[in-house]
Amino acid sequence: MTVTARLAEIAELGRDAERGGYSRHLFDAADAPLRDWFRRSASALGLAVEEDGDANLWAWWGEAGSGVVATGSHIDSVPGGGAYDGPLGIAAAFEAVAQLQAEGFTPARPVAVCAFAEEEGSRFGLPCLGTRLLTGATDAATALERVDAAGTTLADAWRASGRDVAAVGADPERIARLAAFVELHVEQGRDLEDRGIPISTASAIIPHGRWRLEVTGSGNHAGTTTMDQRADPVVAAARVVLAVQQEALSRPPARGTIGKVQVIPGGTNVIASRVVAWLDLRADRDDDVRALFEAVLAAAREGVEAEGCTLDVHEESFTARVDFDAAVTARVAAALRPEFGEVPAIPTGAGHDAGILAAHVPTAMLFVRNPTGVSHAPGESARDEDCEAGATALAAALRELAGGA
Amino acid sequence: MTVTARLAEIAELGRDAERGGYSRHLFDAADAPLRDWFRRSASALGLAVEEDGDANLWAWWGEAGSGVVATGSHIDSVPGGGAYDGPLGIAAAFEAVAQLQAEGFTPARPVAVCAFAEEEGSRFGLPCLGTRLLTGATDAATALERVDAAGTTLADAWRASGRDVAAVGADPERIARLAAFVELHVEQGRDLEDRGIPISTASAIIPHGRWRLEVTGSGNHAGTTTMDQRADPVVAAARVVLAVQQEALSRPPARGTIGKVQVIPGGTNVIASRVVAWLDLRADRDDDVRALFEAVLAAAREGVEAEGCTLDVHEESFTARVDFDAAVTARVAAALRPEFGEVPAIPTGAGHDAGILAAHVPTAMLFVRNPTGVSHAPGESARDEDCEAGATALAAALRELAGGA
Repeated sequence: MTVTARLAEIAELGRDAERGGYSRHLFDAADAPLRDWFRRSASALGLAVEEDGDANLWAWWGEAGSGVVATGSHIDSVPGGGAYDGPLGIAAAFEAVAQLQAEGFTPARPVAVCAFAEEEGSRFGLPCLGTRLLTGATDAATALERVDAAGTTLADAWRASGRDVAAVGADPERIARLAAFVELHVEQGRDLEDRGIPISTASAIIPHGRWRLEVTGSGNHAGTTTMDQRADPVVAAARVVLAVQQEALSRPPARGTIGKVQVIPGGTNVIASRVVAWLDLRADRDDDVRALFEAVLAAAREGVEAEGCTLDVHEESFTARVDFDAAVTARVAAALRPEFGEVPAIPTGAGHDAGILAAHVPTAMLFVRNPTGVSHAPGESARDEDCEAGATALAAALRELAGGA
Repeated sequence: MTVTARLAEIAELGRDAERGGYSRHLFDAADAPLRDWFRRSASALGLAVEEDGDANLWAWWGEAGSGVVATGSHIDSVPGGGAYDGPLGIAAAFEAVAQLQAEGFTPARPVAVCAFAEEEGSRFGLPCLGTRLLTGATDAATALERVDAAGTTLADAWRASGRDVAAVGADPERIARLAAFVELHVEQGRDLEDRGIPISTASAIIPHGRWRLEVTGSGNHAGTTTMDQRADPVVAAARVVLAVQQEALSRPPARGTIGKVQVIPGGTNVIASRVVAWLDLRADRDDDVRALFEAVLAAAREGVEAEGCTLDVHEESFTARVDFDAAVTARVAAALRPEFGEVPAIPTGAGHDAGILAAHVPTAMLFVRNPTGVSHAPGESARDEDCEAGATALAAALRELAGGA
């Protein structure tokens, strides 16, 4: 097979007619068929599949013992995401195993192909949910209390999917069995396209914080309330949005985004009473993100108070900078050299399960060139030949890390 | 009885536990009990009740002949509305009839107390549904095709309520029998509170336009896209929101509001690709609204294009200024003079059934002071003694307009 053919098998699952692209969220209608695809792909290669207590899938090449070399990525998407973010790393992993098997290669260490749950955090707002639970980065009780947009708790959704809530949580024994983890992922920018190369390794994930901002004003009638009598949280929130842009622009390479907004009650002829906006900040170092947040907060408060509104701020997550394992990354780069020459190690602004696992397991990443540089939108792209190159690179990495003949 | 006691009879109908206040929509669970209340109130005064083909209720004092003096208001609310917007005009009408009857007054003309259907348009999106249908301002076929948030058509909801779809539509014969209409309504601002008076008449409903604004940018990854590579429609829409405020502020008494916003796709870690915002503009004269719109549009385009985004604009409705009947209003004001002195005629920014009827029937309005000035929210208010003053004023108006002894 090819990576492209593997992805074609799921091309119709979770399509989003409204936004374009794909919306594949934890336990939604597309989730079970996507998991079936994982199981069929594994079975065809003779790999045994198990699901851990945190809804992550593991396909085992060899006995599920210790010293495991694991690879894979996530099965979910953002709302209206592209075709590659997540599934490419799974499809390339199966294709790499298939190539190694075709060569007659037998790994000395067990190899696992993984599909992680809810990496994007699109349903329950907690990115890397599956690996956070698995590693204990987030405790089960805290995670299970989270609610989705419909007000359903993760605990209830978990039960409704037929899974056991008691099994959710850290599995240090499983983590301890991992000797290395490599995640292949489509690049989420145009760095490789600009450099003219198909594949790279990753140096680091820049740090990342998320905050929920609640702007409260005075709901009233849009027709009868004069402009000078208003405390309009939509206007106040607009000032917050511009403050975020201004502060991030002034501190390159920082990034500041508000991409999710709720206006309550949301009537055309009603001055809103409340706006909830989610703030996403990234910068090179942890301290840079904290300093950016403080600057945004000060400017936002000033703008909100000028409109007679109030601002409440809740930190939803803070993900420290992750530097990938230098030794594993060097071994992967060396394995790639015969086929790809010297590949660079580039930093990324995106979070990954690899970033969570890196705190516990020597971890590396591989990126596949994205000609548009677009990510988290239908315009995300990867050339077919680059996807196949990804599988070739991942096969070389597994051959190196797993050993064998 | 008192107006307050009449309103107390429906105080538990249609309460909204989530938003606070009341959510009373066409044919919902509260609708039939509210109609029963209307029928009981009429029966207690010896008034015969009929429902017209458009689900509006009519209670007749005297024979349902010609030269009718009608009064009343609407029975529905916005989502999470106050206790007075609508029902106060019905309760005060019944109380006015009760007072006139207690005086031994017999009207020379027939008097009708009305309860109009779906004035807020909260279920099917068409404000003044009952009077629009009755007057033919909206034709039956167009209205019956409208759908509510659950996808139910008005036609299906109409049938499900046990009513006849064939009876829906204009009733010019009924309209022709009306000699005058007076609607009493809680004020939807603080004008009377600021003036220190309990009651006024209305001069006009200021004109009102609604537009849907679509801001399109480039969806992308919030972590990997540098600030200088973005075309973020949330930032562009924020500039539009501030342009609306700025332009409306500079042209008092104009009002400009964006109270409904959709951010697409709406992920925390996603630069949005599109924002849809609904613009509500009001000003003193039709031309003022048009000029305000042009100014907003120019400023909005500038802001949107500065962010590398594009703006599409769709007019959803334009409601011209309504001037209430000067002669009827003067007669009502004269009738109020012994009790209330000289009352002002104030303009309002809110739509009313009286505004629809004014195109066909000499029409006036009475406003009752609202100490908070809040409208379309639970904080809407009216003092008990002002509600009773409203009934006294309405009784004086009916005595004058209906004649008799």
